[in-house]
Amino acid sequence: MKHNFYAGPSILPQSVYKQAQEAIENFAGTGVSLLSISHRSKEFSAVMERARALVKELLKLDDDFEVLFLQGGASMQFLQIPYNLMRSKSAYLDTGTWAFKAAKEARYFGEVDVVASSKDKKYTYIPKMYQIPEDADYFHITTNNTIYGTQMHAIPDSPVPIVADMSSDIFSREMDFNRFGLIYAGAQKNMGPAGTVMVAVRKSLLGRTGRDIPTMMNYQTHIDKASMFNTPPVFAVYGSMLTMEWVKNKGGLKAMEKINDEKSRLLYDELDRNPLFITHVAKEDRSKMNVTFDLKDDSLKERFDNMWKEAGIVGLKGHRSVGGYRASLYNALPLESVRVLVDVMKELERTA
Amino acid sequence: MKHNFYAGPSILPQSVYKQAQEAIENFAGTGVSLLSISHRSKEFSAVMERARALVKELLKLDDDFEVLFLQGGASMQFLQIPYNLMRSKSAYLDTGTWAFKAAKEARYFGEVDVVASSKDKKYTYIPKMYQIPEDADYFHITTNNTIYGTQMHAIPDSPVPIVADMSSDIFSREMDFNRFGLIYAGAQKNMGPAGTVMVAVRKSLLGRTGRDIPTMMNYQTHIDKASMFNTPPVFAVYGSMLTMEWVKNKGGLKAMEKINDEKSRLLYDELDRNPLFITHVAKEDRSKMNVTFDLKDDSLKERFDNMWKEAGIVGLKGHRSVGGYRASLYNALPLESVRVLVDVMKELERTA
Repeated sequence: MKHNFYAGPSILPQSVYKQAQEAIENFAGTGVSLLSISHRSKEFSAVMERARALVKELLKLDDDFEVLFLQGGASMQFLQIPYNLMRSKSAYLDTGTWAFKAAKEARYFGEVDVVASSKDKKYTYIPKMYQIPEDADYFHITTNNTIYGTQMHAIPDSPVPIVADMSSDIFSREMDFNRFGLIYAGAQKNMGPAGTVMVAVRKSLLGRTGRDIPTMMNYQTHIDKASMFNTPPVFAVYGSMLTMEWVKNKGGLKAMEKINDEKSRLLYDELDRNPLFITHVAKEDRSKMNVTFDLKDDSLKERFDNMWKEAGIVGLKGHRSVGGYRASLYNALPLESVRVLVDVMKELERTA
Repeated sequence: MKHNFYAGPSILPQSVYKQAQEAIENFAGTGVSLLSISHRSKEFSAVMERARALVKELLKLDDDFEVLFLQGGASMQFLQIPYNLMRSKSAYLDTGTWAFKAAKEARYFGEVDVVASSKDKKYTYIPKMYQIPEDADYFHITTNNTIYGTQMHAIPDSPVPIVADMSSDIFSREMDFNRFGLIYAGAQKNMGPAGTVMVAVRKSLLGRTGRDIPTMMNYQTHIDKASMFNTPPVFAVYGSMLTMEWVKNKGGLKAMEKINDEKSRLLYDELDRNPLFITHVAKEDRSKMNVTFDLKDDSLKERFDNMWKEAGIVGLKGHRSVGGYRASLYNALPLESVRVLVDVMKELERTA
């Protein structure tokens, strides 16, 4: 078995692979494949309902929230969010490529106030001093920046509803999620297989724009049909449900946070100690999900690459836009995999 | 094994289930699950390229076509098509619920000319006498109407590009597909697992609206990134590729058409012969994919339902909006399953 550090699609619990395989053979005792049964069947309707309920349960969301499993990824939400929530002005915090792309789509609907940006230092920190305009319809943040390896460890006070892209740190830590107006997350990191995006939105924020929203873009369409207005991405929703059950059975977000703290501490401690490596991210903004680092001496690259590959590690290459290395430590990655990586780093030091 | 007549998600080839299970364990010899490998890996990039190439090969499309695997289903295409192709006017043929819904979204972009409708007779036929306006940017048709069981057996001559929703009859028959300007199909009938929609669009039709199209809505975004602008619905694309390989190996569309002709003839012949059953669709417009029928005498319903369930048949219930029965005879449904259904019908007649 490989030690899988991919940034997304990424490692899922072993039990999820097994249960998904079984469902492809015979779904919920129907004698029919999960891939070949009506989404209106009572067996699949129950999966969708269970997946929606698990999000509310794991995040401890209050009853104003509706949970949807949609398609198009977080990128489609960049458009769908302003379509539904923005009258004429919104505020965005620019903490990386995805945050920047999110703000870009809002410009179709009016004024976009980018309250702060860390682009000046290649997104290696999270801006903390800024003013959120009180007349914005919402304030958009990206809680974890997958490409750069930064994470918001405190959610700012905001005079307007906070909209948060949690694609790469959903279900990874405890937090008061009722502080948000809308939370969304592409499945393919901590939630399940690629192919669905989870949206948890406060009903009380909808229907205020005066805009005639196209059917599929309108959250209300999907809320009214319990997230089954049209054929949902069946397999991705099923895999997400299985993964959330696993999170719950392991002890929920509290347990995930504990193991994620442990895994990230182990790796950052080694990166701080080992003289061959360097990290660029401001210490207080380090991500516990995506750890980015470089070799100080590029001539060691081939040797290091061969060593971790031989150790059974995959997915350690940095994002193509920034280079270097990135180790993603999502919920399903075992502590043992981090130990193997740290051992390779120590071995490189010893033999360099 | 069940005889699976579901209208979608629906039966796929047995080999596809098996290959999908294997890929969840170990994808393309990587030692990593298909669900947990970067979509930028060379192994998955090859899958996307192969899937795109197979569409062009099976449909024999000329080089003006670009093939995309997007998300949101055909329902999202109802919006995306006018976003990209409609300057101020479009024409639609109203042959059922889906065609009607498609026309509805076009109204956000200007004038919609519904050239004809069969709503007057509950969509039980395909209108044939109508004028397509020469100043329309395109003419939209639905080649097969899943809910009602009608199918267009001839494609009309059109003075403007034809846009066709082929969700429920793609890859089921031979045709000159180069006559179209855009072809789209939700995967979950003849193409693969739910969760992706295939779009084949003529490049020469794009960039003409003068509209600033939001990033994810713009076909050009996805064309420029070879259908990988953002994380694609990995599993659905893989399953679609496998299913298209199966179609190709079985002899392509010519072979599919032959077996589909045989299956539908067997069932329609029985429906025409057996005095217990009635069909509502005009004979010349009968679908070879979705066969709709009713019992003449409702009091036989419980008995008939028990009989086909005992024979191992699933998915025979008509669409919730029309009731009755519907047998979907997609590519992967074996002739043997139709024989079992016909035998049950004969047995009902014999014992009624």
